[in-house]
Amino acid sequence: AMDGAPPPTSPTGLSAYVAVSQLLGLTLLATTGAWLGRYRGGVAWHSPLQFNAHPLCMVLGMVFLQGDALLVYRVFRHEAKRSTKALHALLHGLALVIALVGIIAVFESHRTKGIPNMYSLHSWCGMATFVLYLLQWFLGCGFFLFPGASFSLRGWYKPQHIFFGITLFILSITSCLLGITEMLLFKISDSYSHFVPEGILANTLGVLLVAFGLVVGYVLTREEWKRLPLAEELALSMDFKTLTESESPGG
Amino acid sequence: AMDGAPPPTSPTGLSAYVAVSQLLGLTLLATTGAWLGRYRGGVAWHSPLQFNAHPLCMVLGMVFLQGDALLVYRVFRHEAKRSTKALHALLHGLALVIALVGIIAVFESHRTKGIPNMYSLHSWCGMATFVLYLLQWFLGCGFFLFPGASFSLRGWYKPQHIFFGITLFILSITSCLLGITEMLLFKISDSYSHFVPEGILANTLGVLLVAFGLVVGYVLTREEWKRLPLAEELALSMDFKTLTESESPGG
Repeated sequence: AMDGAPPPTSPTGLSAYVAVSQLLGLTLLATTGAWLGRYRGGVAWHSPLQFNAHPLCMVLGMVFLQGDALLVYRVFRHEAKRSTKALHALLHGLALVIALVGIIAVFESHRTKGIPNMYSLHSWCGMATFVLYLLQWFLGCGFFLFPGASFSLRGWYKPQHIFFGITLFILSITSCLLGITEMLLFKISDSYSHFVPEGILANTLGVLLVAFGLVVGYVLTREEWKRLPLAEELALSMDFKTLTESESPGG
Repeated sequence: AMDGAPPPTSPTGLSAYVAVSQLLGLTLLATTGAWLGRYRGGVAWHSPLQFNAHPLCMVLGMVFLQGDALLVYRVFRHEAKRSTKALHALLHGLALVIALVGIIAVFESHRTKGIPNMYSLHSWCGMATFVLYLLQWFLGCGFFLFPGASFSLRGWYKPQHIFFGITLFILSITSCLLGITEMLLFKISDSYSHFVPEGILANTLGVLLVAFGLVVGYVLTREEWKRLPLAEELALSMDFKTLTESESPGG
């Protein structure tokens, strides 16, 4: 917008942490793929391998894409808030669709094999996380994306949205770790305690999931790295505030 | 200190949330006790029941006491900072000792039964959490409790201490959930999928652990509930700041 002005810079360190997070995210996907491809026969729909679509979709949707959706306000800090917000909603939406495919994969695979659903702690945590994540997405769209919600209502909901957003991201990673543990004890319960390569690889995937969550969480909670309002947004929000305050002089 | 002045009040809502957290914490311990007592033969040292000391100690130390240590600055917000800090360190120290007893319990029980150590994702996460928790405790004592560390050094370390403190609390709860899943798949793998009462009870313990973490996390991250410096501390820290700034006029 400001022609001739030097390009805006990001805070020192932020880019490095974001780069590490993306490297970890890709390593996460590669490790999941390696585990399923090398030791679990690969991934295919409408086959005995349908189950394997579950871990792949959940790591991609509920961890990698959800994590990147959270980082969007830090990474695109100099873009207009409206487009960044749209990207945030879009990435979460994509994560939800991919996670839904992953959930259908377990339920169909269980039905084919005659395995009951929803009895384990992993299924309880995972399903609760998915349903609340969907709810949070609808609430986010309702409060922030569509017009209607007042300035003060948005201001009240924003800290709740952020707290529950980070909570759901943590719960997603926790559910993945529970799933890894379940899968290992179902598939290699006899050899797991002998430090077989598959066990080490899957444990490493768990550690990588924690590391990804840690780096994303660090970027999100660092006070100096929060997105500051752009000059034009500040002017605009002042106008809104004046409007709101003049509407209800008592507040 | 201020005779005749009205007793200081806490922010609205804080006391209710803290009460809920303590109720959840006690329910957590009761549920762990019920699981081990009713379905796992109880807890005893130097016996085949020695293993059961592990979950009990970890829930008590790494979750309940660690969580309460984090809440201390919110609950005792009108006490002198020095005594609150000492209580914070003491509760974490107690948590560490109880967790150590819990760790000794698994290692001794494994030795007796000839089971290998440290092969599972639960053991990797749990041990990493314990070692980093111990390190964080030593760093906390070094920076904040003993003199020596300068005002500016403390100011640099404080946000790191808080971030890693909350991270370790989350990792502790995650490790507990992994442990519950492991124990259920070791002990009742045949009946777990038939929704037997032990499975439901242990899953409920997992949900309670998440709920405790959620309430404690909410109290800790609410901006308005942060402990404000007391009047006398503010005056003191002003003096310190003036001193520090006059030492290094360039900073």
